[in-house]
Amino acid sequence: MTPNPDSSSFVKPLIQYMEQYHPISPVLVALYAKQCTLLTVRKNKHIVSPVDSNAALYFVVSGIVRGFIKDSDKDITTWFCFGNNIVGAIRHPDLQPNHSVEYLQALEDCELIRVPYTLIEYAYANFEEANIVGRKLLALHYYAASERSILARIPNALRRYQKLEESKKIDLNKIPLRYLASYLGMRLETLSRIRSKELNKADKEPVEV
Amino acid sequence: MTPNPDSSSFVKPLIQYMEQYHPISPVLVALYAKQCTLLTVRKNKHIVSPVDSNAALYFVVSGIVRGFIKDSDKDITTWFCFGNNIVGAIRHPDLQPNHSVEYLQALEDCELIRVPYTLIEYAYANFEEANIVGRKLLALHYYAASERSILARIPNALRRYQKLEESKKIDLNKIPLRYLASYLGMRLETLSRIRSKELNKADKEPVEV
Repeated sequence: MTPNPDSSSFVKPLIQYMEQYHPISPVLVALYAKQCTLLTVRKNKHIVSPVDSNAALYFVVSGIVRGFIKDSDKDITTWFCFGNNIVGAIRHPDLQPNHSVEYLQALEDCELIRVPYTLIEYAYANFEEANIVGRKLLALHYYAASERSILARIPNALRRYQKLEESKKIDLNKIPLRYLASYLGMRLETLSRIRSKELNKADKEPVEV
Repeated sequence: MTPNPDSSSFVKPLIQYMEQYHPISPVLVALYAKQCTLLTVRKNKHIVSPVDSNAALYFVVSGIVRGFIKDSDKDITTWFCFGNNIVGAIRHPDLQPNHSVEYLQALEDCELIRVPYTLIEYAYANFEEANIVGRKLLALHYYAASERSILARIPNALRRYQKLEESKKIDLNKIPLRYLASYLGMRLETLSRIRSKELNKADKEPVEV
C-alpha cells in the first residue's frame, strides 16, 4: 500500500488543508506521503465500524461522510462531513488503541486519505508544527461539536430545523431524510411535515423582479 | 487586580492541572501568575453572559459551573463542570474577540482562575509547550463535547438518563432538576417520573448481606 515517491502527490489536498493553519516542514510532508494511503469507499459502505480497530483519521477529499452510533439497535446520526475536512470515529485521547464505538459511512462515493494515529502521534512527538496545526484543528472541531451538542438540545423541533438551516453548515438536500431526522433528534414524519411547511412558506414569499 | 509576586501561588492548581499533560517552563508559569486573576463568584451568579465580551477561559478550582444558552427565551443547559477543569463560553477560534452567546453560571459558590485569551494566544505564539498542552486539552474537550452531542440525540428519554448515569460524568444529586432536564432534552415532569421509577427499582434490588 506504500506509494512510491512519484505518486506522493496524493497527499497534497491534506497538506494544503493543514498549511492553512501553519507551514509543514518538507520532512513531515514526506512522512505523510509515505505513511498515508489513498482509498475509495463506495456509496453506503462503512469506512470504520466497531468491528475495526479505531486506528486512523481520514481526510475527505471528495464525497459525503456520515458519523453514527447504535444505541439499543437505534441508528443515531451524529454528524456529516461534506469534504475538505478531517473525520474520525470518536476516541478518548488516553484510551488507545481501541475499537470504535462510532461508525463512519460513505453517503456518496468517497475519496479519502487515511492518516494512521501512529503517524499523528509520531508527528506530535517530533515536529513542533504538528502540535500547532493539531491544536488549531482541534479547536475548530471542538467548536463544531459544541454546536452540534447545543443544536440537539433545542426543545422545539421546528427551531432545531431552522437553526440548522440558518447555520448553512449542511446541504440539507444532499442528505437522506431519515439521517437528517436522526441528526435533528426528531421522527421522520415530523421532519417531513416541517420541510413541506417551510418549502410552502418559501414559495409564498414575494420574489423581487 | 495584578497580584504581587508573593501571592502568585494562587495559580498553582491551574499549573498542576496543565502539567499533567506537559511540563510548563518557569517563565510561562510566571506569566500565568502575573496575568491571571483569582475570583470568587457567588452561587447562581453569572461568570460570563452575552453582555460581556468573551475574553477569558476559567479554571474551576472549586464549585460547580453550568453552561447554557438562550434560544427564543428558552434556557438550554449545555454542560456542567464539577471543578479541576477549564471552562469557557463557546467561541469560534477565527472570530475573536466577540461577545459570548453562551452563559456560564455558578451553581455553587465558585473559586475561579481567570485566564485571558490574550495570554493564551501569547503562550501559543511563544512557548512550544503551550501548543502541546493546548492540543491535549482540546482533544479531551472535543471528546467530551462529542459525547454530549451523542447523548442528546438518543431518541428515548429513559435511555438518555441511564446513559448519563452510567457515564458517571455528572453527580446527578448536585444539579437542580430543571437544569438536568434541559441538559437531557426532556421536560421536568419526564425527568421526575424517570427518577422516581429508577430510585424505586434500586430499592427493590436484592442487597447482599
